[in-house]
Amino acid sequence: MTISSANDKPLFTPGPLTTSRTVKQAMLRDLGSRDFEFVNLVKEIRRRLLALGNVAAPDYECILMQGSGTFSVEAVISSAVPPDGKLLAISNGAYGQRIINIAKVHKIETTTRVYPEDHKPNLAEVDAALAGDAAITHVAVVHSETTTGLISPLAEIGALVKRKHSRRLIVDAMSSFGGVPIDLSSGDIDFIVSSANKCIEGVPGFGFIIAKREALMECEGNARSLSLDIHAQWKGLEANGQFRFTPPTHSLLAFHQALDELEVEGGVAARAGRYGDNYKTLIAGMREMGFKEYLKPEDQGHLIVSFRYPPHPNFNFEEFYRRLNDKGYVIYPGKVSNADCFRIGCIGRLFPSDFTALLAAVRETQTEMGFEL
Amino acid sequence: MTISSANDKPLFTPGPLTTSRTVKQAMLRDLGSRDFEFVNLVKEIRRRLLALGNVAAPDYECILMQGSGTFSVEAVISSAVPPDGKLLAISNGAYGQRIINIAKVHKIETTTRVYPEDHKPNLAEVDAALAGDAAITHVAVVHSETTTGLISPLAEIGALVKRKHSRRLIVDAMSSFGGVPIDLSSGDIDFIVSSANKCIEGVPGFGFIIAKREALMECEGNARSLSLDIHAQWKGLEANGQFRFTPPTHSLLAFHQALDELEVEGGVAARAGRYGDNYKTLIAGMREMGFKEYLKPEDQGHLIVSFRYPPHPNFNFEEFYRRLNDKGYVIYPGKVSNADCFRIGCIGRLFPSDFTALLAAVRETQTEMGFEL
Repeated sequence: MTISSANDKPLFTPGPLTTSRTVKQAMLRDLGSRDFEFVNLVKEIRRRLLALGNVAAPDYECILMQGSGTFSVEAVISSAVPPDGKLLAISNGAYGQRIINIAKVHKIETTTRVYPEDHKPNLAEVDAALAGDAAITHVAVVHSETTTGLISPLAEIGALVKRKHSRRLIVDAMSSFGGVPIDLSSGDIDFIVSSANKCIEGVPGFGFIIAKREALMECEGNARSLSLDIHAQWKGLEANGQFRFTPPTHSLLAFHQALDELEVEGGVAARAGRYGDNYKTLIAGMREMGFKEYLKPEDQGHLIVSFRYPPHPNFNFEEFYRRLNDKGYVIYPGKVSNADCFRIGCIGRLFPSDFTALLAAVRETQTEMGFEL
Repeated sequence: MTISSANDKPLFTPGPLTTSRTVKQAMLRDLGSRDFEFVNLVKEIRRRLLALGNVAAPDYECILMQGSGTFSVEAVISSAVPPDGKLLAISNGAYGQRIINIAKVHKIETTTRVYPEDHKPNLAEVDAALAGDAAITHVAVVHSETTTGLISPLAEIGALVKRKHSRRLIVDAMSSFGGVPIDLSSGDIDFIVSSANKCIEGVPGFGFIIAKREALMECEGNARSLSLDIHAQWKGLEANGQFRFTPPTHSLLAFHQALDELEVEGGVAARAGRYGDNYKTLIAGMREMGFKEYLKPEDQGHLIVSFRYPPHPNFNFEEFYRRLNDKGYVIYPGKVSNADCFRIGCIGRLFPSDFTALLAAVRETQTEMGFEL
């Protein structure tokens, strides 16, 4: 028996995130996965996700896929690119690299354009790659690279890939969808992927894909696995509203509540505003203490921030993390390959006051460890 | 605004099941997926699952895999059978057929022995198949076929596959693990698969695999996908206690609580006793009303029962289902291919008194619909 605090520690991470109490309370139920009420709930979730992207059926379709966000990314890559297709994978971080790994495991012919983690993709090079290789059928890119927090310019990439070169565009918007307005109605994005436990502020258990219907129809028979087949999954959901295989019923209940709360907050624009306020509070305080961001401000999104380890002999990340954790604040290790960084997420059910409290704890820890900058 | 009842309808299904209130309440938390507390929780869950099978590390290892149970079955089949391996898939129902489908999607060389849904596998034929084909490296079988509720004889199959023919044995124990004592310490089973939302009485979100360590080690590099790679998943969990990709943190919290409650109940034997009592209450009452089981009693497990549609012109399953649902009881459609059946599950947080109440509702519905037998 240990003495524990009344509340969980706020999670300043890229997810799973701190969610509202009411989102979690929505899970205090057991619904049958083939029962009316649950079938209606799933239908409603799919419709509302399309609406968040400013699109609707039948031009666009929403597919829910069990597992983590990576399962959904793998499902799209391995269902969308046909056996004789070719993927151009653009990477500037660990999640871009993951797409390359997925393509490799599935033996999908792939060409890559890999950029440093602190740089946006070079669009002139992407343009040249597409112009020079008619075999490329699909292009995949990460919108908000969770490695760093860098946001890539979706509109420009869409204009290039779709309008200029007419290739299918797959966007991993894992840590941005719902936290940054993304309008799919321009038609430039064929597949966009995110997950329940990111900016919609649900709990983990499934990912979702919004697909242009004509692009989805091309996927039939392409999938390299039974479970991660987005066309078969969609067909199952359309046939009788049920998942082919057991869905995470409780995660879906939480997600439905999370969608309600997103609406109450004022939609994606309002949520992006709150995350932006969190971000501004965070970086102002961290800069004041002498911490430096990994990215240039103009490349930095407001969803997650990578900070460099302070160049001070007394700084040690393990100890810093543990001391913050002991004070009740959970931050996140870094993932940048060429620099020592840690990460702080601005997303989830957190407000500027939570960041003010975090900053006070960081300040206290700085003093305790003696790494004043 | 609709008026709803204070409690959810009990789920007489093969899962997702009715779980205890306290299992669901365990989800009223947000834990960081890379944080100490969660890492310890995962470690504890893996250890306790091994103990339920009466084995322990390092001879056996437990792998948790995001997604539904099918994701875990696919992960095992597509990670265990090497490129030059051959699978013997034994099937007597929809879940055996699903294993065959998985092997087909992955282009795994496969031979099948398919039996009618109301028959156990013919072990003499399995023996002959193994004796006659040295290329077969792996055998897969379903323990409790959720299609019908038929239980196949694990000990005999193990003796044949492992001891007589020295092939790797994969068991889909989705709807039996935790609800029927299964002792893995004989060493006859190399991989056994089940899921969080079955007889352990957790909520859906992940499956689990108990693997003999030497069999697991052979899987390295075999996987046909990034996500469903059991060796890489195990390696990740061993390296730092963390999942490679976001785990369903709330489902894992619920599962940990469910394991506590299984222990309090008296372990698997006591739970099997309760499910057996549920089963006896159910079939006695259903037989009294004239319903007939699909299986012969000697093939029937105590986990789930398929009943034939009554041969009466006034019986109509959709109406029967809806009327029971309106009364607050959720049963399950059938899945038998050659007979019209519906299913009633005996598993989950249900007691004989719940079945007595269900039987009263069935009796009332029978009168309303006028299909007295």
